[in-house]
Amino acid sequence: MPDPSNSPDVIVVGAGLAGLMAARGLRRHGHSVLLLEARNRVGGRVHATEPAAGCRVELGGQFLGPGQDRAYALAAELGLRVVRTRTQGSHLMETAAGRVRRWRGMIPRLGPAATLDVAFALHRFERLAATVHPDEPWNTPRADRLDGLTLAGWIDRVTRTAGGRRMFRLAASAVWAAEPEELSLLHALFYARAAGGLRAVISTEGGAQQDYLAEGAHQLARRVAADLGELVRLAEPVDSLSRTDQGVRVTSRTGRCWDARYAVVAVPPTLAARIHYNPPLPADRDALLQRLPMGTVVKTVAVYPTPFWRVAGLSGQALSLAGPIAAVADSSPPDGPPGVLVGFVEGPAARTHLARPEAERRSAALDGLARLFGPEARQPLHYLEQDWSGEPFSRGGYSALFPPGAWTQLGPALRRPTGRIHWTGTETATRWYGYIDGAIRSGEQTADTLAGLLAAGAGG
Amino acid sequence: MPDPSNSPDVIVVGAGLAGLMAARGLRRHGHSVLLLEARNRVGGRVHATEPAAGCRVELGGQFLGPGQDRAYALAAELGLRVVRTRTQGSHLMETAAGRVRRWRGMIPRLGPAATLDVAFALHRFERLAATVHPDEPWNTPRADRLDGLTLAGWIDRVTRTAGGRRMFRLAASAVWAAEPEELSLLHALFYARAAGGLRAVISTEGGAQQDYLAEGAHQLARRVAADLGELVRLAEPVDSLSRTDQGVRVTSRTGRCWDARYAVVAVPPTLAARIHYNPPLPADRDALLQRLPMGTVVKTVAVYPTPFWRVAGLSGQALSLAGPIAAVADSSPPDGPPGVLVGFVEGPAARTHLARPEAERRSAALDGLARLFGPEARQPLHYLEQDWSGEPFSRGGYSALFPPGAWTQLGPALRRPTGRIHWTGTETATRWYGYIDGAIRSGEQTADTLAGLLAAGAGG
Repeated sequence: MPDPSNSPDVIVVGAGLAGLMAARGLRRHGHSVLLLEARNRVGGRVHATEPAAGCRVELGGQFLGPGQDRAYALAAELGLRVVRTRTQGSHLMETAAGRVRRWRGMIPRLGPAATLDVAFALHRFERLAATVHPDEPWNTPRADRLDGLTLAGWIDRVTRTAGGRRMFRLAASAVWAAEPEELSLLHALFYARAAGGLRAVISTEGGAQQDYLAEGAHQLARRVAADLGELVRLAEPVDSLSRTDQGVRVTSRTGRCWDARYAVVAVPPTLAARIHYNPPLPADRDALLQRLPMGTVVKTVAVYPTPFWRVAGLSGQALSLAGPIAAVADSSPPDGPPGVLVGFVEGPAARTHLARPEAERRSAALDGLARLFGPEARQPLHYLEQDWSGEPFSRGGYSALFPPGAWTQLGPALRRPTGRIHWTGTETATRWYGYIDGAIRSGEQTADTLAGLLAAGAGG
Repeated sequence: MPDPSNSPDVIVVGAGLAGLMAARGLRRHGHSVLLLEARNRVGGRVHATEPAAGCRVELGGQFLGPGQDRAYALAAELGLRVVRTRTQGSHLMETAAGRVRRWRGMIPRLGPAATLDVAFALHRFERLAATVHPDEPWNTPRADRLDGLTLAGWIDRVTRTAGGRRMFRLAASAVWAAEPEELSLLHALFYARAAGGLRAVISTEGGAQQDYLAEGAHQLARRVAADLGELVRLAEPVDSLSRTDQGVRVTSRTGRCWDARYAVVAVPPTLAARIHYNPPLPADRDALLQRLPMGTVVKTVAVYPTPFWRVAGLSGQALSLAGPIAAVADSSPPDGPPGVLVGFVEGPAARTHLARPEAERRSAALDGLARLFGPEARQPLHYLEQDWSGEPFSRGGYSALFPPGAWTQLGPALRRPTGRIHWTGTETATRWYGYIDGAIRSGEQTADTLAGLLAAGAGG
């Protein structure tokens, strides 16, 4: 039975950045709120750890870039320091055969035909992305056709060279942590549109990887949570949401139970599907939750005594078709000394990687780094892997993927409340879908919407 | 705490036909078994009701056809009578504009160009389906390419006339209860291959709708369940499966708990995703469960004093582009008197339909039947709707849909056991995937596999 002395206006499910911002916003509007988190920590897909005292590494989302206004505003408000991602030096590209080349700029050097091919495909993609309706992708011109194609089908159709196709596919895998076969073209276009274009998505300078926070992006979550204090309850995995005449009854798998006037579900769609709803969700909402898987990604972190690659004129950025790590970036702290290379193993490569024993995974990853950066890369002080697909309360990353048909048939069910249950999270954002900024933005938006309803004393 | 006096060799989760056959097979092999069912009835997607005494109507799967050997064998063993579906008379086809035409044979009359177009597309589809590896679709020649296209994309590419395209799309919606945008071409091909071809899927005579059971298909489930007696426990929605050294601990949402040496999950993938697993499922298995939604279908049943359409020379079969009911069939009992028309509202049309109030749904459905069969159709003795997407323990029908990329990337995880947890159900069948026969077949197969492991005393 719920404790009647503990019946807030709103219960928020999930203390990722969206849930935290929703709770914070509601509280600022003067409403009582409780935030239930399944894990023993806040932050969701933003997370950090310390493999040794004083050595902090980020295991989840970490970058910010121009246009992510809400993220920068929150960082400023919380007193977090924004640092430029280092781009000095040459990037590396490894072919499937293990040949390594240096490059600079946005796209690796390919033959002239392949380079033109990629540039032309990118241009066509950007032009098409600009036609997407940013708030209602299902109302984009020719939406049915764009949503009936996979991104892979489109790449096949548009590229003219094998090298160009491979490069575009590699970029797609890196962006969505999935094979382009899995994505609706319309979703890929919407995602790019929500970020101001695919160039912004894949770029460091002027793009989504331009900056990071000296204290770590997880501090966005920790500091907001600290402000909320005991309103955040950890280790309370929500089990069921039951709608009543007066509001929503929320039960946790710990057996605890609360009544609230409204509930906000701030977890990704595939996790929202695992909550029990009474009465069951409407057909369109449930159908949507059945259709939006997470991408698959393992983030690797290798910590070295120094960023030794800089001496060789390298930026630390690399792409590899040989794997298992497909993309590498320099994530060394701004004030040194350690050198940190973060890597990303994505999609089917991640699943293959995860099927191997730990020692094999480590040596395969470090072998890959050594092929790129030389034998020193094989001797890190610390090597860590964060398997997001194995986290029961994430089940993948970076974000939910829309397969063909989902946006056009079920898009309107994405943000529409179900009675007194509201849905938030970066997957509901119309700008920076899938990013830290989208999470913050959606949580703020949900707080404002609910504050309006509560002020009006409106029902569900 | 589990009751140690009640620790069977195997616990089966879900008393649809697959679960029932698994339990029955294990028991026949001499093993102890318990079958937990979430609902208050057995049968899963096979279900019947009586709107009036003596008037039975089938609300779920009902047809059988050549090649469905396991279904016929079970019917014979249980003493159920196989009856031919009536095909005498003309079928009807309604255009989107509401114009109704008579036709006979397998495909409605279209203009000569459209008819040729459909015939040619069907021929190409069948040829391609014949190339699919029946047990391992991911090992089909050019699997990546076939799995990177949607069925819609393929239809667009292959058909040459608007009429032909519309007809092929209508057939696809009827077969999969989904828009062709949602399906991987490879999945559509595999599905057809598993049924011996798309012609068999869409045909009555010589095809999957050729026969039905006089007593109703639900009697397959009821009679097997009656044999199992108290080994079937109703109203026990399984909440979690925890793997231990000795086996699997199963808990129900009622709070009850059992230990078994093995567990068999016999529910569709999207429902299997909603069970809690300890330890969490491996990345590939979880990723697969995130990706396989059910189709969306509402079955309508209209009961009349007599099958009045037969007097007008009509078969009772109809297709409509005007909707909401897209396909109609005569489902009158073999020994009369009532006349029964069953109808199917599919995919987005089903979701639109379900958003309307009950009275509107009824009159829209009956208006549609009246446009086809005349004003008498507006006055049924009984009108019923079975909303499969609204059933919390089905969440759609007829079967799970593979979106692009799922078969090739995650197919091997579909049938591979997770330690001592085995997976069964029509979605694991290599023949008649999605059909009653596939369910029976998969359950029998799982029983044999587990009996072998139990006899060998093998671990998980």
